[in-house]
Parts: sequence; structure tokens; C-alpha cells
Amino acid sequence: MIVVLKSNVDKEKQDRLVDWLKESGVDVHVSVGEFQTVLGLVGDTAKIDTDLVESLDIVDSVKRVTETFKQANRKFHPEDTVVSVGDVKIGGGNFCLIAGPCSVESEEQIVSIAKDVKKSGANMLRGGAFKPRTSPYDFQGLKAEGLELLKIARKETGLPIVSEIMNVGDLHLFDDVDVLQVGARNMQNFDLLRELGRTNKPILLKRGLANTLKELLMSAEYIMASGNENVILCERGIRTFSDYLRNTLDLSAVPMLHELSHLPVIVDPSHATGMARMVPPMALAAVGAGCDGLIIEVHNDPAHALCDGAQSLTPADYDKLVKKIVKVREAVTC
Amino acid sequence: MIVVLKSNVDKEKQDRLVDWLKESGVDVHVSVGEFQTVLGLVGDTAKIDTDLVESLDIVDSVKRVTETFKQANRKFHPEDTVVSVGDVKIGGGNFCLIAGPCSVESEEQIVSIAKDVKKSGANMLRGGAFKPRTSPYDFQGLKAEGLELLKIARKETGLPIVSEIMNVGDLHLFDDVDVLQVGARNMQNFDLLRELGRTNKPILLKRGLANTLKELLMSAEYIMASGNENVILCERGIRTFSDYLRNTLDLSAVPMLHELSHLPVIVDPSHATGMARMVPPMALAAVGAGCDGLIIEVHNDPAHALCDGAQSLTPADYDKLVKKIVKVREAVTC
Amino acid sequence: MIVVLKSNVDKEKQDRLVDWLKESGVDVHVSVGEFQTVLGLVGDTAKIDTDLVESLDIVDSVKRVTETFKQANRKFHPEDTVVSVGDVKIGGGNFCLIAGPCSVESEEQIVSIAKDVKKSGANMLRGGAFKPRTSPYDFQGLKAEGLELLKIARKETGLPIVSEIMNVGDLHLFDDVDVLQVGARNMQNFDLLRELGRTNKPILLKRGLANTLKELLMSAEYIMASGNENVILCERGIRTFSDYLRNTLDLSAVPMLHELSHLPVIVDPSHATGMARMVPPMALAAVGAGCDGLIIEVHNDPAHALCDGAQSLTPADYDKLVKKIVKVREAVTC
Amino acid sequence: MIVVLKSNVDKEKQDRLVDWLKESGVDVHVSVGEFQTVLGLVGDTAKIDTDLVESLDIVDSVKRVTETFKQANRKFHPEDTVVSVGDVKIGGGNFCLIAGPCSVESEEQIVSIAKDVKKSGANMLRGGAFKPRTSPYDFQGLKAEGLELLKIARKETGLPIVSEIMNVGDLHLFDDVDVLQVGARNMQNFDLLRELGRTNKPILLKRGLANTLKELLMSAEYIMASGNENVILCERGIRTFSDYLRNTLDLSAVPMLHELSHLPVIVDPSHATGMARMVPPMALAAVGAGCDGLIIEVHNDPAHALCDGAQSLTPADYDKLVKKIVKVREAVTC
Repeated sequence: MIVVLKSNVDKEKQDRLVDWLKESGVDVHVSVGEFQTVLGLVGDTAKIDTDLVESLDIVDSVKRVTETFKQANRKFHPEDTVVSVGDVKIGGGNFCLIAGPCSVESEEQIVSIAKDVKKSGANMLRGGAFKPRTSPYDFQGLKAEGLELLKIARKETGLPIVSEIMNVGDLHLFDDVDVLQVGARNMQNFDLLRELGRTNKPILLKRGLANTLKELLMSAEYIMASGNENVILCERGIRTFSDYLRNTLDLSAVPMLHELSHLPVIVDPSHATGMARMVPPMALAAVGAGCDGLIIEVHNDPAHALCDGAQSLTPADYDKLVKKIVKVREAVTC
Repeated sequence: MIVVLKSNVDKEKQDRLVDWLKESGVDVHVSVGEFQTVLGLVGDTAKIDTDLVESLDIVDSVKRVTETFKQANRKFHPEDTVVSVGDVKIGGGNFCLIAGPCSVESEEQIVSIAKDVKKSGANMLRGGAFKPRTSPYDFQGLKAEGLELLKIARKETGLPIVSEIMNVGDLHLFDDVDVLQVGARNMQNFDLLRELGRTNKPILLKRGLANTLKELLMSAEYIMASGNENVILCERGIRTFSDYLRNTLDLSAVPMLHELSHLPVIVDPSHATGMARMVPPMALAAVGAGCDGLIIEVHNDPAHALCDGAQSLTPADYDKLVKKIVKVREAVTC
Repeated sequence: MIVVLKSNVDKEKQDRLVDWLKESGVDVHVSVGEFQTVLGLVGDTAKIDTDLVESLDIVDSVKRVTETFKQANRKFHPEDTVVSVGDVKIGGGNFCLIAGPCSVESEEQIVSIAKDVKKSGANMLRGGAFKPRTSPYDFQGLKAEGLELLKIARKETGLPIVSEIMNVGDLHLFDDVDVLQVGARNMQNFDLLRELGRTNKPILLKRGLANTLKELLMSAEYIMASGNENVILCERGIRTFSDYLRNTLDLSAVPMLHELSHLPVIVDPSHATGMARMVPPMALAAVGAGCDGLIIEVHNDPAHALCDGAQSLTPADYDKLVKKIVKVREAVTC
Repeated sequence: MIVVLKSNVDKEKQDRLVDWLKESGVDVHVSVGEFQTVLGLVGDTAKIDTDLVESLDIVDSVKRVTETFKQANRKFHPEDTVVSVGDVKIGGGNFCLIAGPCSVESEEQIVSIAKDVKKSGANMLRGGAFKPRTSPYDFQGLKAEGLELLKIARKETGLPIVSEIMNVGDLHLFDDVDVLQVGARNMQNFDLLRELGRTNKPILLKRGLANTLKELLMSAEYIMASGNENVILCERGIRTFSDYLRNTLDLSAVPMLHELSHLPVIVDPSHATGMARMVPPMALAAVGAGCDGLIIEVHNDPAHALCDGAQSLTPADYDKLVKKIVKVREAVTC
């Protein structure tokens, strides 16, 4: 950790700071420059509160030399992590195609979509049972019943199932769910992350709407620090000043997360754009950026299919898209 | 609700959309313009999913005429809500001064600060017992013990106490806490909001780092829809591209929230800026903007006080600041 | 244009607003809803200042039904525009590869790079002569001399040349430059745009760091309204809260701009990421998103090449990348 | 300047970097830590391109110890700069009240407003003659004629005049204008800044919509480096994800700019909010934050005044507001 002091700092204040840092158990090397003095801290700096130090009036800025995420950090784990879900592998060169409806609505719906997407090449089924909704008056999902319907669809197709958990109290309901998804709004629900770390389930961790890559990796670290290393990171769009699109899909997160971490990185182009017609180009773009998989909404509901326009693709559109995904992936990885 | 169609829309698709909307139970008035057709929806449009309609390929855009927040909406409740915490009143012309340390650390610390801030004019005591931390390796608070220490400080000073709750499972521990705070990271933890709505406790609801005012009011609506109308809104800084400051305190939220809602609005200049020396100007600015109260970090820890620089003010600084706050408030409300 | 009034609006104020709108030459249809009144404006609403109307205290919100950009609008010009630069075509299925150094430094440098990138498949040469620099103390480019060196490289290779113009006063120096680039910081330098509209040169218009797609199209409209329809749009990254990368490349802008406008859309992955190692994945992602070309920095300067790390690719890296670009483009357009 | 290398860096690459840095004329101190190596650069590091160094693949990050802005930097100029405009002083404890219409429309209009705002206590008159408009089809201002009308209003009232310049080519028209304003969209029009630095006119420099404080100060540096030290900084709202307000007024910029620079800082609450009813609370908030002046739009146009709602205040509203501004300023500075 490097602490840059302001120019012309009072010597007494500087000494008090150095003493206090040393009491925290780190070595402090003072190097005096022409205009400013720089403190180099060596040792276990993880205990030092950088925000506190940065806020001191004699301090200009603070810089951590080593990242605070350890288990998620590629520096300490150079090999790609491969997460296994039954026979499906994600990461380390293995590409996954997760597809399914936004919400589970009925047995007929989920089984039919599961069969369709499997035929197109999907190797996992998604479906929301517990739905985080901005408004208390909106449909909140079929809950436990939705999970049961997903299991029926799994039985019919063999596809492992992915569903979102919002609350520690619901954990027992997910015993037989293959992958537990943490939604964007819960990315920093630390109590939930810690509990998920105590399971051995693969966790699909979505990046929050306004969270940095470092914060995403620190949330992965919460899960890993509790003992569960099966974390799949997911970019799903960030909040910007954008006018025509709901969110801005940050695809540069894909190669950057691969550089910072050994965890697999998948992309959700459906939530990022909110429009079915934007999903194919952004899915192909994500493959171009080198992602390890795609999670895409597919439905067969005639009301939603009304004008070929909802956020979800029809099974036919998904089928066409998968063919292109396969070709672009070949072009990228050749 | 107004639905603007794209130009040259296929008549058949338009008819299917109109039929589908009517089946949802609303009346649809079609008005044909020179370039585009506009549908006016009348009736209970709350059930219509605007995101779905907006994503249809024949739809240019959708606009809600009436807001989706009802109970928090000033339109349906023109009078200011006054939240009472013991003898303290917030809103409707009543100003509150909440102060205390970031974390409760010991009985001596919290009692001493409580006495200091009370002397300066504070009428509520804050202190963190459960701490949301970005890193799993950081101090997570004294938890239940911290709440007990707050109660001792309340007994000594008579100040009502405010503390953050992170998890539905901890609710029983907060039975005897006066105001329950929902932190920025939990603003859209809907299960937590719903449970807090079932208590009769005043809830201090902090705006999330990247949440719009509408989303903040929808989260208030979750609490109110479950039966608890004692919600205090709190602006605490938003995430922007800012370089020198951690967050950007969005003070224009104060008059705008007052226009949109009848709920009281307070400001937290400590978290917004992260630097003690920025707290006084931003606290006075918040008073200028017309807020109903301020929540400010104050400590007496010599390590933190090291260089007059941490995020928290010293009791002496707080005392000076309160004197100015009182004067600016007089100037603003005269 | 649709004007939504607030609930319970004073009838007299409403009448004054309607009268004033009618005096502006538009027809006004008033439709009274349960909670709110909506005004539908028909006719030449381009003269109505939406900001002014929106700021009136009886107005809830205003929505333009027709976009304010006309010549750039696909609604009024459904066919893709193809911009021709000598034999090179951009848009309408024609892909362009623009490459070259950030700054022109010497004849040897620019000629050597031009030969290299031509061999790899580039069909245009870029090079900065006038450099917009955040600091007045930084190198500002070789200016007129740099343009002369670009012309030498063009003579040697046949590649048309692209260079940035910052100032109306320099326009005479660009007489023999093939494509004039408007940089992100000048996207709303309206006097410059208007003058460029009076030339018949192809203009490469970069999106500003924090400009919406609508603003980008309005800036294209400035050029087109002055008579020059040869505009190439360029996405080059937007400013967000991003931590590890300088900017956030907004690739969803590519399909959305294609939907809104008939103009070609290219992508600059070099400036967007600022790191050579991020350029290949983001270039391939841009191709996946359907862009009409790529502008990429390539250098052969041993100092810059020091550790294979600068923003610019080496000629060898560029050669490898072009091979993949070609394959991904085939996969996407097949 | 501090350069943090990645862990396990190839020794040969590190040596080449150190040699290259030394060739640039700086001393390099290498300190080897447990995980990473840190290079400390001493000497004239202004010539080192931090972006280039940061992009090298062996470099983790780069940190400038001394700011790149020099003349605008409080470190090298601890006393507040006081800018004089005739008898009016700004900064160093002197507060200025600039008011007037968005656009100059007629002699009658500008003279009448000038008299009104002078009576209320304004000490400078603003009025737009050259208007930067997003759309080429919108009114672009009265241009030279507008400046002449401003001079008439100055003659009638004695108020110095402030008007925006958009183009170097118009500079001769501003010979007799007292303060030249650089608008937000031109904040990084470096050629314009450089030319303004060659005049001795006070320059009112508005912060760009998405520019950091450092970039604002670097733009001030452009003017100062050319010889003109009369720069007034102006915060006018930044672009964020905000929903109900056009921009987010960043008032924390006021104390932070005062800490970083000796230049006066004023605030424009009219453009920041875009709604007259939001101007008074945000103006008072700005005074609370410690600004050195306010620039506020005032009009007397009955069409604009229609419903007391436009961005501009009426003269009567301005008069009331000034009375409060004076009181809040007394409370803040007592």
C-alpha cells in the first residue's frame, strides 16, 4: 500500500500517522520527494482501512498495491476455474448456453420451452420462480411451485436448472436446484452471499447495475471465503446516461474479468438490452469478446410473442441465433 | 398510459396489440397522427407491463401518465407526513439532527459520543451494529452486542436510537430499536422491505448508489403497501464519474422528492463525501436545499481523530457545525 | 408531440397554455383522463421548445412523437447510406478497416505503418496531425506538417487518409485529406459541424464521451442540414463509473444506431479501452454487434512497443487480428 | 510519479522500462515488495505519458504524485484569486450575483430585465447572443446584434455584461464585452481556450456535462498557460442516470475546487435543474456549499412566464430569492 502525503505536511502529524500505521503491524518506508512525501507500507495491509487513511487531511491519496480479493484473484490462481453442473462444464474453454423464460408460468410452458431450447443446443434451463420486482404491485413469481415446475422440465429434458434466490430464508427450497442465481439487486446482499458460500452449489453471480468489477469480485470473494469456489460471474448491463436502451452492456468487462480472475464469465444480453431485436447482435458481440457462455430469455407465450418484440426471443429466433453463436465462437477461438 | 407506435405500422399487428390491451381490462383510444399513431390507455393500467409493451417492435415508446407509486405519492396525499420517534418529529417543518459513530465500538465510546452530540443539539443517536462491508475480511460490526450498547446510551441520554438492519432474520433483535435503517445496498432487497412494512417502526430508507428517485419511492411503496407509513427518505450520494470524491451528493433530490412525495427527506453528507472536511459545507448545502434533517457521523476515537481528517467529525467540529445549521435553517425558512 | 398535464390543473392556466401553443401554429387536441389531461399537438411541432414546455409548473412531462433529426433518420430514408472514399465504400454491407498511428511522427514512421497495415488488409490510413490534449503542456501534434506526411504515405500505398480537424480556421489545410474526423470533444462544436457540412468531404463523427445517441444524430444532422450527407458515425466508448477501464465501449449503440439511422456506424476499440491487449476482443465484439468498420491504432515505434502493451497494436498483432475479424464477419453475415 | 508493476514481472521487460524512463530524463527508484515492485519517478515527470505507461502489460497502475495543473493549483498559489470586472470583485470573500435572460431577444427585453435584476441586487448582467443548440433547426441567437443590445443595457444600468463565445473567429465581436463565457460543450475546445488565454478578459469557464474536476482545472490551465489568469470556474450540473431532473448539480465540486485551486467558483442552478421552481432551493444550497457567486436566468417574457414555470425566474421571484441568498450567505460566513 502506498500513501501519498500532501505537500508541506506538518512533520508532527506525519510522525503520528507513521506511528499509528506501525501499530497496525505494517512496516512503513518513508521516501521524501521534491514536492511530496510517499509512505510505502509493507506487510499485512489488509487490516488498514484505506478509506480512513485517504480521508485524513494530510493525505493526498492511497493506492493498494495488492488487490483485496484473494481467492477470486488470478494472481494467486493462474489456471481457469471450470465449474461443473452435472455433465455441463463452464469456463476453461467450455461454453454454456443457458436459456428459458423470464418467469416460470405453467408446466406446459416450461416443459415446452425446455424441449425447444434443448433442441437448439442449450445445455441449461433458466426460469424465474422468485422475481425481484421494482413495484410491490407486480407479479412476484410462482415461488416454490415454480421451482417444482422447473424440476419437471429437467426430468423431461435432462437439462440442469438455474433459478434466482432472493432470501436466505428460502435456501431450503433450492436443495434440488442445480445453479443458484444471485440477481443484480442482491449482488451486495452480503448475508445471502455468505450463506451461499456454505453450500456447494454453483452460484451464478450477476453484476449489480452500478457496481465496479472490483466490487463484483469482492462479492465473489464473500462466497469463496465461506468455502464455495463454484462461482460464475455474469455481466448483464450497467446503468449509464443511455437514452434508447435500458442499460449499457459492458462487454469490456469480459476480457478484463478474465485478466483479473480465474472464474468463468457469462453474459446476459436479454436483460441488458430489454428488447428481443437487440439480443442477437449483442449475443454475438459477447461471443466476440470471449465470454464463457450466454444466458438468454426464450418464451413461447403468444401474448408476449404478439409482435416478435418482447425482451424474450421466440424458440425459432433462438434456434437461428445459436447457429450463428456457434460459428462466431469457432471464428474467435480458432 | 400512452403508447406511441412507430410510423407505418402494419395494421394487423396494431389491431392485435389493441385487442390484447383491451383484454387486460383497459380502454384504448386510437389517435392517428401525420407520422405516427398514438394509443391512449384509460382504466387500471397498473397491470400493464410497460417494459413488455415498450419492447414490442411496432412500439416507439410508452409513457405512464400516472405514477406507479401510490401511497408515497403527494398527488394522493398532499399533506406532509410527520414521522414521530418518541418526542422527536421529522417532516412537516420539523427538523431532526441524527448523529453518532459509524460503528458502535464500546460502551464508553457510544455513551460519550451520545452525551456530546446531545449537548450540541442532536435529537437522535446513530450507530452501526451490523455493518455491510464490501470485503468479507473487514470488521462486520458488534451485531447484537452493539444494539445493547446503543440502548445503554439511550438510557443515559434519552436520545432515540437509529441502527441498520441487513437481514430479515435479525428483525427480532431490533424490537427495542427506535428507527430501523435500510442501507443503500439493500434499497431493493424487497423481502426485507416487505417485512419492515409489517412492523410499526419508523424506517430510515437510504437511496441506493445508482437508484433513481422513482425506484427509491417504489421501495418506500413496498414498506407502505405492507402497512407501515413511517418512512423517512435519505439521500446519501450517487455513483457518477466523479474523480476526487467517492460519491456525488445529489441535493436536487431534496426538493424533487418533496414535490413527488409527502414523506420527509433527510441527507447524509458523511457517506456522500467520505471526508470530514467536506461534511460541513455539504451539510449546510443540504439545509439550503430544504431537507428535513441531517444524519452525520461523529466520533471521539483518537486514532480516527489523528489528523482531523476521517469521514467522521469530532464532537467539537459537530458542535460548531450545528450552530451554523441552525442559522442557515432560520435563513431558509424565514 | 404529447404534453401530459399534472393532475388538478388550474383550468385558466391550462387554457393559456393551449392558446399559446395554438399561436405557435400547431393544432391541440385535449383529452381528459381520470387523473390527468393530455394535450396532443399536431402540425409543425419542430418550433416548440420542449424544454420550455416541460418546465412549466402545470406540465408533468412532454414527449416528442417524431424525432427532431430528419436527414439522419431512417424513417425518412430507409436505405443504408454508402459513403465512398475513392474506391473504398463504407456501409450497406461494405466493411472498412482504418488503421494507423495515434500521431504522425515522421515520414519513415507513417510510410512504414501504412505499408504494414495495407498488407494486413486495411483499406484506409489514420494518423493524428492536430491532437486534442487535456493538458496544454502535452505534445499537440505536427499539425500542417503531419498532414503532408500523411499525403506521402497515401502516395506510397494508395490508402485514402483520415485525420482529425479541431478548428474551422484549419479547414483550408484539409483540402486534400480524404476523410475529416471530428473528435469526441468536438462532437457538439456546432460551428465546426456547420462548416464541415459546407464541404463535400466524408466526415467521421465520433460520439462524445457523455453524449446520447440522439445527440450524436443531431450532430450528424448539423452536417447534413448544411448539405453534406457523407457522415460516418463512430462509437468510441462512453464515460461511466468503470474502474479498470478508461471508458465503457457501448456496443449496443451499433444495432440501435442502425435502427434509428441509415448512416454507417464504425467502432474505435483502441480509444475505448486504452490498452492494446483489450483491443482484439473488443474489435471482434464490435464485428459481432454488426458494425460497418473498425478504426484501430497501429504503431511500429520501439518505445511504444516496449512491452507489447500500449494502446496501439504492433503491425504483427494487427495482422493476426484482421484474420480473425474477417472470419467473425463471415460468421455474422452468413 | 509512482509506477506499480504487476507481480512476477519479467526482469528483462522491467529493465527495459526503467531504461526508457531514465532516457526521458527522470530518476527511477526501484523498491521491491513482497508481491509487487514499485518504481518511484523523481524529476520532471510532466513529459511522461501516464496513459502510455499505464497501458504497458507489465504495469499494474500509475499514480501521479503532483497534479498536472500548475497555475490553477492552490499548492503553488495558496491565496484566493480575486477576479475584477470593473468594480465587481469575485472570489476571496467577494460574492457576485449574475442574472439575465437565456437569450437576448430585444432592446426592450434586455434593458427591462437589466433594470429589474439590478434593483434586486445583481451586480452583473448575463444574456446569450450566440446560442449553442443541440438541433440545427433551433434559434441560434441574435449574434452580433445581441451583443450590441447587451451593451445598451450596460449603458442604462452600469452592470458589466457576460456573454458566451463559441468560436475563435467571433473573438473580435467580444472586444467590448466584460466577461466571456465558455459553455459546457466547449470546455475542451482547446483552440478556443488558448485564444482566450491571449486576451486579458475575465473568462467564465463552465464545467462540461461529463468532465471531472481535474479536466475542468486542466482547461483553466490552458487559458492561464497562455497568459490570462482571470478565470472563474462554474459548476452547472453533470450528466448522470437521474430520472426527474435534466442534470445533477454537483455541489460537492464547490468545496473540492476551492481545496484544489485558488480560482473563484460560481454555480448555475438554472441550467442544472432546467425548472424555475428548483432554482431557489438549489441556489440556496449552492450558497450553503460556499460558492463565490450565482448565475441565474431571469426573464420578463409573458409567454415564458405563462405558468410561473420555465427555467427562468420572473424578476419578482428573483427579488425574493436574492433576499434569502443574502441571509444564507451571512449565516454561512459568520
